[in-house]
Amino acid sequence: MAFEDDVRTAVSNYLDAVANGTSADIAALYTDDATLEDPVGSEPKVGREEIEKFYSALDSVPRSTELLTLKVAGGTAAFHFRVVTEAGDQTVTVEPIDVMTFDEQARITGMRAVWSPADMTVTGGEQ
Amino acid sequence: MAFEDDVRTAVSNYLDAVANGTSADIAALYTDDATLEDPVGSEPKVGREEIEKFYSALDSVPRSTELLTLKVAGGTAAFHFRVVTEAGDQTVTVEPIDVMTFDEQARITGMRAVWSPADMTVTGGEQ
Repeated sequence: MAFEDDVRTAVSNYLDAVANGTSADIAALYTDDATLEDPVGSEPKVGREEIEKFYSALDSVPRSTELLTLKVAGGTAAFHFRVVTEAGDQTVTVEPIDVMTFDEQARITGMRAVWSPADMTVTGGEQ
Repeated sequence: MAFEDDVRTAVSNYLDAVANGTSADIAALYTDDATLEDPVGSEPKVGREEIEKFYSALDSVPRSTELLTLKVAGGTAAFHFRVVTEAGDQTVTVEPIDVMTFDEQARITGMRAVWSPADMTVTGGEQ
């Protein structure tokens, strides 16, 4: 179970980085040749450079994350979480289920985010 | 969104079948050459015959299912659910996150269940 504990810690570290880190901090949790598909069905990002660019949209906005449910099976994690971003006077909340795979060092090798517009809410910014 | 609605209905039909159907009813929701990996990391079952055999363990036991969270992105669904089986005087509850893929007719082409013993509880059967 030690490895599964490492995977649980890695998910926690990821959500901490998404909430509090830079895009470089987040990308550093991925392997060099990792893939990211968010949402599932979009063109996958390949490699840490593309992955850092994907997260760079977060660098300028306050955000928070909350883990809602986490399941681990070997080197695969599936977790339901909430990410809240403050974009100007709007608050955007998205609640995906992410599916992540990890290597033996619990570095992220792949991420696929399952969500649709139905899982996003926007509040504020209206009169 | 019509296809995503079909996928949502297919997940609902799957949980209905797991609760109330035979193993043949459940297997009929899969395509002929579908794959099933439950839990992730175990040897995948390939094809409807192996899949029906996998579910045959359920045929003799009372069970119920409850959908807890469902996310859909195109032909992929990820859902957190509870399945409760009554095995003799024991009640076994498992709460996985399943990741399913679907073809254009919303038939299941693949299922991967993410859970570990930490997500299973057994009650009863003890003095």
